[in-house]
Amino acid sequence: MISSREDVTKMILAAKVSKGLKWRQVAEALGLSKEWTTAACLGQMTFDKAQAEAVGDLFGLSDEAVAWLQIVPHKGSLPSAVPTDPLIYRWYEIVNVYGSTLKELIHEEFGDGIMSAIDFSMDIQREEDPKGDRVNVVLSGKFLPYKSY
Amino acid sequence: MISSREDVTKMILAAKVSKGLKWRQVAEALGLSKEWTTAACLGQMTFDKAQAEAVGDLFGLSDEAVAWLQIVPHKGSLPSAVPTDPLIYRWYEIVNVYGSTLKELIHEEFGDGIMSAIDFSMDIQREEDPKGDRVNVVLSGKFLPYKSY
Amino acid sequence: MISSREDVTKMILAAKVSKGLKWRQVAEALGLSKEWTTAACLGQMTFDKAQAEAVGDLFGLSDEAVAWLQIVPHKGSLPSAVPTDPLIYRWYEIVNVYGSTLKELIHEEFGDGIMSAIDFSMDIQREEDPKGDRVNVVLSGKFLPYKSY
Amino acid sequence: MISSREDVTKMILAAKVSKGLKWRQVAEALGLSKEWTTAACLGQMTFDKAQAEAVGDLFGLSDEAVAWLQIVPHKGSLPSAVPTDPLIYRWYEIVNVYGSTLKELIHEEFGDGIMSAIDFSMDIQREEDPKGDRVNVVLSGKFLPYKSY
Amino acid sequence: MISSREDVTKMILAAKVSKGLKWRQVAEALGLSKEWTTAACLGQMTFDKAQAEAVGDLFGLSDEAVAWLQIVPHKGSLPSAVPTDPLIYRWYEIVNVYGSTLKELIHEEFGDGIMSAIDFSMDIQREEDPKGDRVNVVLSGKFLPYKSY
Amino acid sequence: MISSREDVTKMILAAKVSKGLKWRQVAEALGLSKEWTTAACLGQMTFDKAQAEAVGDLFGLSDEAVAWLQIVPHKGSLPSAVPTDPLIYRWYEIVNVYGSTLKELIHEEFGDGIMSAIDFSMDIQREEDPKGDRVNVVLSGKFLPYKSY
Amino acid sequence: MISSREDVTKMILAAKVSKGLKWRQVAEALGLSKEWTTAACLGQMTFDKAQAEAVGDLFGLSDEAVAWLQIVPHKGSLPSAVPTDPLIYRWYEIVNVYGSTLKELIHEEFGDGIMSAIDFSMDIQREEDPKGDRVNVVLSGKFLPYKSY
Amino acid sequence: MISSREDVTKMILAAKVSKGLKWRQVAEALGLSKEWTTAACLGQMTFDKAQAEAVGDLFGLSDEAVAWLQIVPHKGSLPSAVPTDPLIYRWYEIVNVYGSTLKELIHEEFGDGIMSAIDFSMDIQREEDPKGDRVNVVLSGKFLPYKSY
Amino acid sequence: MISSREDVTKMILAAKVSKGLKWRQVAEALGLSKEWTTAACLGQMTFDKAQAEAVGDLFGLSDEAVAWLQIVPHKGSLPSAVPTDPLIYRWYEIVNVYGSTLKELIHEEFGDGIMSAIDFSMDIQREEDPKGDRVNVVLSGKFLPYKSY
Amino acid sequence: MISSREDVTKMILAAKVSKGLKWRQVAEALGLSKEWTTAACLGQMTFDKAQAEAVGDLFGLSDEAVAWLQIVPHKGSLPSAVPTDPLIYRWYEIVNVYGSTLKELIHEEFGDGIMSAIDFSMDIQREEDPKGDRVNVVLSGKFLPYKSY
Repeated sequence: MISSREDVTKMILAAKVSKGLKWRQVAEALGLSKEWTTAACLGQMTFDKAQAEAVGDLFGLSDEAVAWLQIVPHKGSLPSAVPTDPLIYRWYEIVNVYGSTLKELIHEEFGDGIMSAIDFSMDIQREEDPKGDRVNVVLSGKFLPYKSY
Repeated sequence: MISSREDVTKMILAAKVSKGLKWRQVAEALGLSKEWTTAACLGQMTFDKAQAEAVGDLFGLSDEAVAWLQIVPHKGSLPSAVPTDPLIYRWYEIVNVYGSTLKELIHEEFGDGIMSAIDFSMDIQREEDPKGDRVNVVLSGKFLPYKSY
Repeated sequence: MISSREDVTKMILAAKVSKGLKWRQVAEALGLSKEWTTAACLGQMTFDKAQAEAVGDLFGLSDEAVAWLQIVPHKGSLPSAVPTDPLIYRWYEIVNVYGSTLKELIHEEFGDGIMSAIDFSMDIQREEDPKGDRVNVVLSGKFLPYKSY
Repeated sequence: MISSREDVTKMILAAKVSKGLKWRQVAEALGLSKEWTTAACLGQMTFDKAQAEAVGDLFGLSDEAVAWLQIVPHKGSLPSAVPTDPLIYRWYEIVNVYGSTLKELIHEEFGDGIMSAIDFSMDIQREEDPKGDRVNVVLSGKFLPYKSY
Repeated sequence: MISSREDVTKMILAAKVSKGLKWRQVAEALGLSKEWTTAACLGQMTFDKAQAEAVGDLFGLSDEAVAWLQIVPHKGSLPSAVPTDPLIYRWYEIVNVYGSTLKELIHEEFGDGIMSAIDFSMDIQREEDPKGDRVNVVLSGKFLPYKSY
Repeated sequence: MISSREDVTKMILAAKVSKGLKWRQVAEALGLSKEWTTAACLGQMTFDKAQAEAVGDLFGLSDEAVAWLQIVPHKGSLPSAVPTDPLIYRWYEIVNVYGSTLKELIHEEFGDGIMSAIDFSMDIQREEDPKGDRVNVVLSGKFLPYKSY
Repeated sequence: MISSREDVTKMILAAKVSKGLKWRQVAEALGLSKEWTTAACLGQMTFDKAQAEAVGDLFGLSDEAVAWLQIVPHKGSLPSAVPTDPLIYRWYEIVNVYGSTLKELIHEEFGDGIMSAIDFSMDIQREEDPKGDRVNVVLSGKFLPYKSY
Repeated sequence: MISSREDVTKMILAAKVSKGLKWRQVAEALGLSKEWTTAACLGQMTFDKAQAEAVGDLFGLSDEAVAWLQIVPHKGSLPSAVPTDPLIYRWYEIVNVYGSTLKELIHEEFGDGIMSAIDFSMDIQREEDPKGDRVNVVLSGKFLPYKSY
Repeated sequence: MISSREDVTKMILAAKVSKGLKWRQVAEALGLSKEWTTAACLGQMTFDKAQAEAVGDLFGLSDEAVAWLQIVPHKGSLPSAVPTDPLIYRWYEIVNVYGSTLKELIHEEFGDGIMSAIDFSMDIQREEDPKGDRVNVVLSGKFLPYKSY
Repeated sequence: MISSREDVTKMILAAKVSKGLKWRQVAEALGLSKEWTTAACLGQMTFDKAQAEAVGDLFGLSDEAVAWLQIVPHKGSLPSAVPTDPLIYRWYEIVNVYGSTLKELIHEEFGDGIMSAIDFSMDIQREEDPKGDRVNVVLSGKFLPYKSY
């Protein structure tokens, strides 16, 4: 019995290792970005029927698991409020060190409101650099203003 | 008596409101990016002597305050482990929802290691869009590999 | 020296008690809803210049305080992650008991996405009832869908 | 052996996915609102005998599971004090940003007391809007006054 | 400037020590129970005008402080989620050890619902006992049932 | 293998539902109060041999489980520091709102010390009331004074 | 205005340093143990009138401060749930490492109940030892049994 | 497969109940104090080979379990930072109420440093007393001074 | 099915005990330092293919487990934010007591920046000492400066 | 009135900035290591009389402040359990990632026990390196074994 999307995420992770698949290959098979595809396979986004079946084929999942991939998941991919993994922590640190800067500059440019994390996309690229390659991440979110009423 | 950089940050914030300054203007006066300048004024980066004096002139700070601007601050700009301000929270949510995706894709591309939050820069831009303007943020950090020894 | 919006909120609260003002009166003076007006006076929303000056007149605030009312505040009105005040706690309890229900029913009706807390309004009304009057609160938020990319 | 209501909730969630049921259909079968029905299926409310048997038939539950549906559950549907799921977090954010406003306005209208979360009902509706459909939620709770004694 | 009810509570506590008053005397002066009176003086309940003025006379408070006594306070009298004071901790321990028992027995007698903490009164009495006097506390709260809708 | 008292509590809860037993019946069978009996069955008190065997007969427990009922348990019946279940939370709220009152009045009557939570008993009664029945709970604990030495 | 016992504790600590007093001397002046005296001066115990006046003379306190020494304090001398000071942490570690041992052995000897922290005394002694002197601490608390009722 | 010392602790606890063993008997069989023996059986200390085999014989453990008894365990016997069990909590309370006293008096006698929790022993004794027997616990730890360098 | 690196860590720990292996032997077999090897076996570093197969041979792991050893793990080896194990806690204490010193002295020598925990190595040695042997640990990390941009 | 060592630490930090002193200079004036001297000035160690007076001269402190420097401080230099400053966090991360490795290797070499954080010294050095200079930190602590008794 599968009673949560997390059970399916574990199946995908196990199958990915044993089959030696890359997220890039999964994304190509779906015709979607590697960022959205990975997030969805990790239980943070919802697949439609065709996508779920394609994912099920790639990872060899049961029909029940494929049905769960089409259910909106309970999101949140970190096991603790402050992440312990060094790669993920660096992102938390960026929010900690630059959070007030992001707030000041977005408000200075747009006024009161937020940058959406829903109407949002992310693109991760390698930039070659003789002093050491760089990870470049572009985050794009719609600005949503607070309005008085 | 000023006994921490936070005291100076409060002075800067108070002067900024009473003088009606923009971060953009401060950055132009220093000849630096608005992102780094704002972070530094908010107590997250260290000014050199010339920068500190220019900041002191703009905000009307005492010599003692200008001296503190050149001291490496105790960093961390958020008052709680999970931010409550909606704009900053959305960034925490991005780390929460996409953190495992960032981890998987950076490792898939670069192997084990992290994206540096120190050898790092940030650029915030407005993208005009008829469906609502977007906030585009480019984060660039050097990849630092773990090595066996 | 005023160095945060919270300082102004305290001034407003003190003046409100000593002058015996009602939030309803403040809202009428501004020509806005009592819900938005109260939230703004409590440091959760941003006033424009005319609104800030009207608020300053009503509460007898200094020019410096009026300037701060036009600065986007650091939002979050609760002193602890789990509220201790019984009235506010009941709302936290509603989120705790009905949170999964809200999630299931909004997803069943709209698919994956959220109800916005930014493009959002609230209306509080008394409903007379012989068994004891009721508080009726209408919350209205735009649905924002997650999209694949 | 079933030793908690949570075990039954998991069975219901698993059966719902494999049978492709909608909460709306379950509510219609019971002749109750979709809000109360969903909350009850998710382990937050108590079914009477007839309701429990109807739920058991719909989801194909054992007699033991049906007996548990009639036991008052240990309520609380969120796995952490601050929710991580974006949809549920937005509600927590509403309590955080508007909590003090709710407190002020309910006290201004009713005096000291609370809006009950027990003598309470909730109604979720879609409002069509050309700028994007809205989620409208009406919360209705009896006002309970504190009295001196 | 008084900007919160806590400021007034501190004034009352300081005056109580310097004047050597007893809570019992305050309650008698108000014609109310010692339990409600003490809770109100400690910032957990709201005085009406006549009560507030009587309290102001007893403790020698300013008009501004008397006005604050009539404002509904932000309740919660403990500085931490788990109390450290031994007397108060014992009550937390009773909730911890007997909480599930209270839940089971109230549900067995009344069905699903709660014992109100708002329509509630408390009475503290000394019971003489040769083996050591006992503290007897009677808590009385209205039962509020959950109802389906 | 049973390795903790909690395992036995789960067996009792499962048997209670499948057999349709009431705590009141268990208490009568043991000749003890329903309050102590329920607390003991829920793993908060220790049974003697005769009591444990009677409980084992009622719930159909193995000899190993009956042996565990005679072991002093690790007490504490709540899964989180701040309870989420509404019924239990109301008790935590009483401690939060009235905790300082209990402290002041017990000290005013008895001096420095505590009300024991060990030499303690509890009695829960229904009081009929035309405005809605009430839950009356009497808590009785020996006063234990601090002494100088 | 003194509004809490902590204010008086700070006065005592400041006077102790400037006057160069030892706790041992304070205890001798009061004719009580150094353990109880120190705890009382640090705001954990209540002085009677004669003791409070003697303490006031030794430390040069005002009459208002002396009055506060006779008020039962809000106990708890540590600023965080897990202590950070190494000396105090070692005691927390002893509870962490040996807590289950204390529980098992006290129950094996006495049955279900606790060792009182109220009817309690403590004695700290230096034991000379050629391998390094030892701190010996004797803790003595009355055993309080749980009883069925 | 046994993958942690905690698994062995559970086996010991289960065997202790089913065999009706006392810690005192285990200690006698090993020729060690009951305090160290109990702590070691509860997974806080490391057995040598002979001790582990003796423990294995007493509790009927497998060779694999006996091997684990000789592995240094991950120490810490409490499931939460603030203990909920009343007996263990009283010890935490002693550290909370008397922690600052212990710190002051040990520093007054020995200077800066700590009482070791490693070079440490504990002895628990029953003291008969007509007013109720007492638990006497002697803790002895080497004083370790901080030194400048 | 293995769905996380932690599952493999448990297999390694179980095999290490049953086979009586030393980390030193594992390191020698791999031709790497004992520090890196142990961290990697405990799930904190990533093995390459040859290393993973050698580890698999030593511990008798399945092919699936060997595949997981080559996956970048979710790092973080402590079960709680503040460690409870005395050996590990001492390191946390060093960070707590000396953290501000490390910060001051590294900034005094190098300016603003950090000591890398990624481009990092560790070496643990025993230093014989007649007063008791010492643990000497050398930590070496590249200095990474913050730069303005 | 100075009522805690933290007040003196703030005075030292303020004086250090306004006088432009280096920790290295303070250490030389005292004839002690820069590591111990800095820790002591930051309120983590205790000065003797001569050291305190020298520190007082360098920083221009009052006699009262100099007296406080000779009082054993309440140690712990971090404002939160998980540090937010990136330099200090990296050390916390080292404990998190390598903590279990330190535990395994120290136990493998020395048996059960700890590396002392009291009988402890630290030495920080710059190592020049063409690929970027390195921070080398040597930590030396006496091994303290657990012994059975």
